[in-house]
Amino acid sequence: MEGVDILPHERSKTQFDVDAMKIVWAGSRHAFEVSDRMARLVASDPAFQKDNRSRLGRKELFKNTLEESNICMETFGSCFVTEEEAGRLRFFVDEPAFTDLHWGMFVPAIKGQGTEEQQQKWLPLAYKMQIIGCYAQTELGHGSNVQGLETTATFDPDKDEFVIHSPTLTSSKWWPGGLGKVSTHAVVYARLITNGEEHGVHGFIVQLRSLDDHMPLPGITIGDIGMKFGNGAYNTMDNGVLTFDHVRIPRNQMLMRVLQVTSEGKCVQSNVPRQLIYGTMVFVRQTIVADASSALSRAVCIATRYSAVRRQFGSQDGVETQVIDYKTQQNRLFPLLASAYAFRFVGEWLKWLYTDVTQRLQANDFSTLPEAHACTAGLKSLTTTATADAIEECRKLCGGHGYLCASGLPELFAVYVPACTYEGDNVVLLLQVARFLMKTVSQLGSGKKPIGTTAYLGRVQDLMQCRCEVQTAEDWLKPSVMLEAFEARSARMCVARAQNLSKFANPEDGQMFLDGSHAFPLIHPFASGFAELSADLVEAAVAHCQLIVVSKFLDKLQQDIPGNGVKQQLQNLCYIYALNLLHKHLGDFLSTGCITPKQASLANDQLRSLYSQVRPNAIALVDAFNYTDHYLGSVLGRYDGNVYPKLYEEAWKDPLNDSVLPDGYNEYIHPLLKQQLHNARL
Amino acid sequence: MEGVDILPHERSKTQFDVDAMKIVWAGSRHAFEVSDRMARLVASDPAFQKDNRSRLGRKELFKNTLEESNICMETFGSCFVTEEEAGRLRFFVDEPAFTDLHWGMFVPAIKGQGTEEQQQKWLPLAYKMQIIGCYAQTELGHGSNVQGLETTATFDPDKDEFVIHSPTLTSSKWWPGGLGKVSTHAVVYARLITNGEEHGVHGFIVQLRSLDDHMPLPGITIGDIGMKFGNGAYNTMDNGVLTFDHVRIPRNQMLMRVLQVTSEGKCVQSNVPRQLIYGTMVFVRQTIVADASSALSRAVCIATRYSAVRRQFGSQDGVETQVIDYKTQQNRLFPLLASAYAFRFVGEWLKWLYTDVTQRLQANDFSTLPEAHACTAGLKSLTTTATADAIEECRKLCGGHGYLCASGLPELFAVYVPACTYEGDNVVLLLQVARFLMKTVSQLGSGKKPIGTTAYLGRVQDLMQCRCEVQTAEDWLKPSVMLEAFEARSARMCVARAQNLSKFANPEDGQMFLDGSHAFPLIHPFASGFAELSADLVEAAVAHCQLIVVSKFLDKLQQDIPGNGVKQQLQNLCYIYALNLLHKHLGDFLSTGCITPKQASLANDQLRSLYSQVRPNAIALVDAFNYTDHYLGSVLGRYDGNVYPKLYEEAWKDPLNDSVLPDGYNEYIHPLLKQQLHNARL
Repeated sequence: MEGVDILPHERSKTQFDVDAMKIVWAGSRHAFEVSDRMARLVASDPAFQKDNRSRLGRKELFKNTLEESNICMETFGSCFVTEEEAGRLRFFVDEPAFTDLHWGMFVPAIKGQGTEEQQQKWLPLAYKMQIIGCYAQTELGHGSNVQGLETTATFDPDKDEFVIHSPTLTSSKWWPGGLGKVSTHAVVYARLITNGEEHGVHGFIVQLRSLDDHMPLPGITIGDIGMKFGNGAYNTMDNGVLTFDHVRIPRNQMLMRVLQVTSEGKCVQSNVPRQLIYGTMVFVRQTIVADASSALSRAVCIATRYSAVRRQFGSQDGVETQVIDYKTQQNRLFPLLASAYAFRFVGEWLKWLYTDVTQRLQANDFSTLPEAHACTAGLKSLTTTATADAIEECRKLCGGHGYLCASGLPELFAVYVPACTYEGDNVVLLLQVARFLMKTVSQLGSGKKPIGTTAYLGRVQDLMQCRCEVQTAEDWLKPSVMLEAFEARSARMCVARAQNLSKFANPEDGQMFLDGSHAFPLIHPFASGFAELSADLVEAAVAHCQLIVVSKFLDKLQQDIPGNGVKQQLQNLCYIYALNLLHKHLGDFLSTGCITPKQASLANDQLRSLYSQVRPNAIALVDAFNYTDHYLGSVLGRYDGNVYPKLYEEAWKDPLNDSVLPDGYNEYIHPLLKQQLHNARL
Repeated sequence: MEGVDILPHERSKTQFDVDAMKIVWAGSRHAFEVSDRMARLVASDPAFQKDNRSRLGRKELFKNTLEESNICMETFGSCFVTEEEAGRLRFFVDEPAFTDLHWGMFVPAIKGQGTEEQQQKWLPLAYKMQIIGCYAQTELGHGSNVQGLETTATFDPDKDEFVIHSPTLTSSKWWPGGLGKVSTHAVVYARLITNGEEHGVHGFIVQLRSLDDHMPLPGITIGDIGMKFGNGAYNTMDNGVLTFDHVRIPRNQMLMRVLQVTSEGKCVQSNVPRQLIYGTMVFVRQTIVADASSALSRAVCIATRYSAVRRQFGSQDGVETQVIDYKTQQNRLFPLLASAYAFRFVGEWLKWLYTDVTQRLQANDFSTLPEAHACTAGLKSLTTTATADAIEECRKLCGGHGYLCASGLPELFAVYVPACTYEGDNVVLLLQVARFLMKTVSQLGSGKKPIGTTAYLGRVQDLMQCRCEVQTAEDWLKPSVMLEAFEARSARMCVARAQNLSKFANPEDGQMFLDGSHAFPLIHPFASGFAELSADLVEAAVAHCQLIVVSKFLDKLQQDIPGNGVKQQLQNLCYIYALNLLHKHLGDFLSTGCITPKQASLANDQLRSLYSQVRPNAIALVDAFNYTDHYLGSVLGRYDGNVYPKLYEEAWKDPLNDSVLPDGYNEYIHPLLKQQLHNARL
C-alpha cells in the first residue's frame, strides 16, 4: 500500500462518528466552527507560513514575527473578527510574540491592580496599541520568589514621584517577553519604600522608550537576553533585560487599587479585598491546562499518524508491519492519546471552576479560594510536566525522523517546555498542594468538612479500610472501582505523610511566602519536617492531582454525549489513562495496600485489551482534534500520509543546498583532500 | 555571600581527596593526564570557541565546522599528538563533524568487511584523507531494519561491474553524516543481486564526488537533509540524502571479506567467521555507554554548581536559601550525580568485556557472544535513555535560566538525544535483551548454565524464595542485601514473564531478524505471545540491565581505591543510585514480593540520610570530572560560580542587540504605534 493510501484505509475502519467527536473536543458546535474557520484562515494566508522558521537567523526571525503580528492586528481590525475569533487566530498563528504579553499580562495587570482612574487613562492607549506594554517582574537573580525582588521604588514627596532603581546587577529585570526590543511601557514590580520604610512589592507603570523614536529613555538600559532553546521556538520573542538608574515616574503611576500612597508618602489600604486578585491566578493557570491539552494533542496527532504510515520489521508477506501495530508502540503512544483527552476535559472543568470562583469572589465569598488555588496549581504542574515529557516521547516514537525539524516535534518541545517553570515552578506548586492537603488532613478531626476536589478526604476512614473488589480484568471498567482505588491511594498517602510529619518536633512553621506572580498567603513549604519530607509530600500531591483528572474524566462520561460510538471511545481512553497511571505508580497502590499484585496484573491485562480496541480508531481519534496541516507544522503528521515524498522535497530547502559546493569548500575541503594543510604529516 | 565566594566556600567543606577522585573518574593517572592536557589545549585555542554556535545560521555554522575540523587535522599532524590524544582532542572540541563518520564508520567498515587487498588499496587513502568517506546504510523509508533496505547492487558479468540503483523514493539513502556536502566516497549498503537472485544486504565502496572539483558524479543526486533539533547541535553535521540512477562500480568495490562474488556472478562464502564482525557492535555500544556518562556528568556538573549558586525563598536571615539545600532538589539531582558515576564504572567494565570477547573470537570461541551482545545492547539502551532524560531534568533543575542557550543545557540535550535512536532503537534493543532472557530462563531446566551477567539466573530457585532481611534503614547499606533485592526482582520478573508467555499457543516463532547495522541472529521479537506481552517483557529487560549497573558499581567498591575518603563517597553514590531505582520501580519490587512496604519505607529513610552525606561534597564530586569551562560551555556551570555578571555580559552578544532599534521597526512597530496600519479600526 502506498503512503497516501494508508490513512484513508485506516479511516475506513473507524467505529465512531468523528464529526461528533470534533464537537466534543472543541467543547461546543460554536467553538468548533470558530476554531475551524480561524484555522483555515491562517493556513490559507502565505504570510503565516511557518515551515521556514527553523532556517531563519535571529534577526530575520524576529522581523518575521513583527510582520506577522501586524497582519494579525490588521485582521483583528477588520470588522469580521470577534474577540473570540481573534484569540483563536493568534492560537493558530502559533508563534510567541510581544503581543502575548501586551494582551495577556500588561492589560490584565492594569485592569486588576489599577484604580478606576488609572484604568481610564491607560487602557484606551493599550487597547489601541498606542503604547505597547510588558510585565517586568522576574529579575536576573530572582524568579519564583516575588518577595526576593530587589528593584526599589522610593517615594520622593518633594517631587511627588517614585524613583525606580536597580541597586544591584542581580536586580536587573530579566526574562520579560516583549521587553527586549518592542515595549514602550512596562508594569514594573519593585519594593515600595516611603519615608524610609519598606512596604512590600508593588506594580508601577513605567515608560521605557520614547514614543517618537523608540529610543530608551534616560536612565534605562535595555536589551534582549539572547538565544533560547530551539531554532524558532521562543526566539521569536524579545525576552529582555532592563536596569534602572534612578528613573522617576509620577506618583499616580503606581498601581493603587489595593494599596495607595498619599502625597505625604503614607500607605493606605483600600477596601478592595486582596483576594480579588487571586482569581486572576486561577484564570491564568486554567488557560495553561487548556494549552497543555493543545500541545499534547498536537504531538500525539503527529506521532499517531506517522506510526500508521511507518513500517519496520515483521515482513511476513513482504510488507513490513505498521509501527502502530506493535504493542510496545501502543503502550507508549495510547496513554498519551488518552492524556490529551483527559487534560482537555479537566481543562473544561477548570473553566467552570474559574467562573464559580469569580462569582463567589464578587459576592465576598472567599471560602473556596484556597481549595481552588491548590487545585489549579496542582493541575498546572501535573499537565505541563506530563505534556513536556509526552512531546519528547512522541518525538522518539517517530524514530530517527522525529529529530528533523521537518517533523515539527523539536520545535514543539522547545517552545513548550518553559511552561514547566513559568507561572510557578512545577515542583514548588506541588509543594503548595501538599501543604494544603496536610492542612486539610490535620483539620479532619476538628469536624471541618473538606470541599471540592478534597471532599473525598471527608471519607478518609472508609478509604483507609476499603478493599478493592476487582476479581477479573473487566472489573477494572467499573467507574466506582476505579475512583475508589485512586481515592484510597491518595487518601492513604496523605495520611501516611501527615503521620510522618507529626513525628517531627516542628512539623511546620508559620512563615508566609508568596507564590508565583501574585501574593498568596500559604505557609512556607520549606520548613523543618515539611522540608525534610518534601520529596514524599510531592508524591502525595501528584496522587491527589491524578485523582482529580481521573474523576473529572469519569464525570464527563456521565454526561449525555451524542454521536455514534463516541462515548465508547471516550470510555476506552478514560480507562487507558487511569490504568496506565496505576501501572506507572504501582508502588503507591501496592505499598498502601489499595490493590493486590494480582489485581495489578489484571489491570495490565485490561490495558492491553483496551489498546486493541483503540487501535482501529486511533487515526480518527487524532483527526477529531481537527488540526490543519499548517497548525501541525509536521511533514510526518500530514493528514494525507504522504510523508516520504514531502520529506524529500523539504530537504532541498535547507540553506546548505543553495549551492552544490558548501561555503568553505575552497578554504577547507579542497586543501584537505589535496594535502595542502600546514604542518600536515598526512 | 557574593556569587564568586560561594563555590570556594562549598569546596572548603569537602570530605575527600578530589585529586584522587579525578584519577578514579578518568580511569588511570595516565588517562587523566592526557585528558587534562587536551582539554586545556582546546580551551586555550580561540579557533575552538563554541559559545557563538547557537547564534550562527546554518551556512556559517557548517563553514565553522569545516574550519575547526581542519585545525584538528593540523594538530593531529603535528608530531606531538598520539592517537589517544587525538581522540581526546576531538572529544573536547565537542562538535559533531563529518570526520566522526570518516574515522568512526567508513574506515572501520573497510577494516572489518574488506579483504586484505581492499584494505591495502583504500585504507592508506582514507588515513591520509585523500578521500573522505561516510557510511550510507539507512534509507528514507528504512531505519532499524537492515533487511528492509531497497537500494540494489546488481552484478553485470559482461562488464564485471555492479550497478547501484535506487528503485524507489523510499530507497534514497537518508541520514548518513558527512554525506550531504563533504564525502567523496561512501560504503553503501545494498541488496546484492547476481544472476537474477538476491543474496542479502552487503557493503560497496562507491565514489560520490569528483576528486577534482567535488561535483557529484553522473547518476548521483546528493544533498543535505535539513535542520535538526537545536541551534547548533547536530546542525554542524551534513547528514545527507543520496540517490543512485544506475551507477556503475567495479566488482572489486564490493566489500568481500565474508562473501565474494566471482566474475561469473557466483557467491562464495569465505572461511572468515561471520561472528568476527559482531565484535564491532560490542565495541561501538561500549563507546556509547562511555559517552552517556560524559554527557550526563556534564549536565550534572552544570546543575549542581548552579544549584549551589542560586538562591530562592527561605530568607530567614535576609539571605535566601541555596537551592541545593532543598530536599526536593537533592531528590532530583543527587540520583543523577550517582548515575553519572554508575555509568562511568559500567562503561569501564564494558571495555573489559570487549577485550574479553575479542580475545575469545580470535580463538574461535563464540560461546560468550550472545550474552555479551544482549548485555551491551541493554546497557546502551538503559544509559542513553536515562542520560537524555537526565539532561532535560538538569535543565529544569536550573529553573528559568536553564532555557537560555547560555546555560549550555538546551544544546547538550539536542545534540545528545539521537543516541536513543541510533545504533539500535532503545526499545528494540530491550526487546532483544528480553528475548535473550526468556531463552535463558527456558533453558534453565535443561541444565544449561547461564553465564556472565545472567549467571544469577542459575540461582533462580533461591531467588524465587529469598526474603529481604532489612530491618533498619542502615541494613540497606549491606552489599549482599542490595544485590539480592535487585537479583530477586529481575529473576522473578523474568520467570513471571516466561510463565505468561508459555500460556500462548505460539509463544515465539523461529523467524530471524537482523539488528541495527549488523547482521545478528536473534529470534524476531515481534511474534505472537512475545508480541502481545512485549511491553511487560521490556520491563523485565530494564530490571535486568539495572541489576548489571548496580552489581558493577558494587564490584567497583570491592576494589582497592586510594585517596582519603574517596571510597566512602563512591559508596554513598552507589547506594543512592540503587535505592533511587528501588523507589522509582517500587511496583516491581513489591508485586514480586522481593521487599515489603515497610522495607521500602526504610529504603527512603536511608536515601534521605545519604543525600545529607553527599550534600557537603556535591561540588567536589562534580569538580572531580575535571571539566574545563570551555568543555562545559555553560555560564551557569562556571567553575568560579560567577554566574550572574557573565549571564548579563553574554546577553549583549545576541544579534538582536547589534542595534538599538530592531530590523523591522520602521515597517512594523512605528506604524503600529502611530495607528498607520491598513484597515485598522484601532
